[in-house]
Amino acid sequence: MSNLQRLSINSETIKQWSLEELVAGCVDAGVPGIAPWREPVATYGLAKAARLIHNAGLTVTSLCRGGFYTAREPAERKQALDDNRRAIDEAAELNSPVLVLVSGGLDDRDLKGARGRVADALAELAPYAGERRVTLAIEPLHPMFCSDRCVVSTLKQAFDLAEPFPKEQVGVVVDTYHCWWEPDLDDQIARLGAAGRIALFQVADWITPLPEGVLLGRGQLGDGHVPLRDIRHQVDASGYQGPVEVEIFNADLRKRNGAEVLAEVIRRYRDHLV
Amino acid sequence: MSNLQRLSINSETIKQWSLEELVAGCVDAGVPGIAPWREPVATYGLAKAARLIHNAGLTVTSLCRGGFYTAREPAERKQALDDNRRAIDEAAELNSPVLVLVSGGLDDRDLKGARGRVADALAELAPYAGERRVTLAIEPLHPMFCSDRCVVSTLKQAFDLAEPFPKEQVGVVVDTYHCWWEPDLDDQIARLGAAGRIALFQVADWITPLPEGVLLGRGQLGDGHVPLRDIRHQVDASGYQGPVEVEIFNADLRKRNGAEVLAEVIRRYRDHLV
Repeated sequence: MSNLQRLSINSETIKQWSLEELVAGCVDAGVPGIAPWREPVATYGLAKAARLIHNAGLTVTSLCRGGFYTAREPAERKQALDDNRRAIDEAAELNSPVLVLVSGGLDDRDLKGARGRVADALAELAPYAGERRVTLAIEPLHPMFCSDRCVVSTLKQAFDLAEPFPKEQVGVVVDTYHCWWEPDLDDQIARLGAAGRIALFQVADWITPLPEGVLLGRGQLGDGHVPLRDIRHQVDASGYQGPVEVEIFNADLRKRNGAEVLAEVIRRYRDHLV
Repeated sequence: MSNLQRLSINSETIKQWSLEELVAGCVDAGVPGIAPWREPVATYGLAKAARLIHNAGLTVTSLCRGGFYTAREPAERKQALDDNRRAIDEAAELNSPVLVLVSGGLDDRDLKGARGRVADALAELAPYAGERRVTLAIEPLHPMFCSDRCVVSTLKQAFDLAEPFPKEQVGVVVDTYHCWWEPDLDDQIARLGAAGRIALFQVADWITPLPEGVLLGRGQLGDGHVPLRDIRHQVDASGYQGPVEVEIFNADLRKRNGAEVLAEVIRRYRDHLV
């Protein structure tokens, strides 16, 4: 199974599985990494989850997710920052090197204001994360999520946000689903990699038609239009040597048997990414 | 009605209306411009449509649309280019200064190849358009349409495609729905305007949740997150003095009484754009 050594499974890909099932399934299948979301960790219990994963011999590649700190109202903003500090603590306890950050969207029409507040939030959180040896990984989401989920939309924008901070504190997530269309993708990956700013590489494919709400429309690897292998090669060539995390939000995958989905992900990973 | 002098209504906004109804409705409401799609023009008859619009005292601000020339296969490609030449002829006959171009999407995973073929197609069509005094207006569509509709995704990318040609031959459409999220929007509008490359300004608002297939999810002016007035002011400040074309693809608007929709569009235009 040597070609699976960089593979990690994000818990949203097989959301029908509990954390215990995900851990057992990955051990069975020879997958060395998992990326849990905070919810299944909380359900299972944080300290218990850390032990479970450690005892299974698995690596946590990232914790998903922090962020959602674009609120303008001070009390709401404070609440968001406090929650992010908790998320950083959780990442540290899970021995996760990375906390993924999705910035949050807009309540109004002030996109520039919201983007400015993202930079401010990073300045508050970066030192706290650094002390706990957790890298904050800014994830630019596809621009179709700009109003309701994430005002950070491109790799360049994420890089510009990360740059003022030490790279151990703030990096960027390259997720093929979100960035595959970017006209300057090659250049941005090369730049990010050369600067040591790729904190995480996530993969999913792009398929159409998008479903209502667009959230659960990501494609299984190989089902869509993303040149996955090319992008992986670029990411590797830029200097990144970290995990390849499969994060597919797909309503149909969640209706199937978890072990079957995992086996399919592994086959597709070998066919399209290795 | 002096503040409507730059307003134009795209036929897709009130698709329930025939071309005749659109012309009569705009005359009644004091709207000076229309932007028909090719289909209603063909249904009514091209020469007849040109007379109808001219006799009504209306201006055609653009013809929608050409493009869809990303096919790799030579016969398919030739067919697409021939169809674009016909679209240019139609624009000329309608006295439309602009033919809107939506590039087409991908059959495969070769995004770079498809983008290269867009540049090639422009090189074939630009002189033909120039001879007929029609400006080809490259419309970058929102990246959520990259695979199935348009591999041109940003204003900068469109500008780069337009730049090799005289500005009378090839320009760019700035459509608020497609570009509102762009991190460098201000700079790109300023650059395009200064270079005389804004061939057309279209407006619609961004609302969520997006419907299945996402095509018919554009928002009525003022219903969403786009700072419409700010963007209009930027576009004007960049030197653009042309029409403000309202192009809203929205399933609900199409179910209502056409005259009511037009009256609402005019109110919203005054409230959010003038």
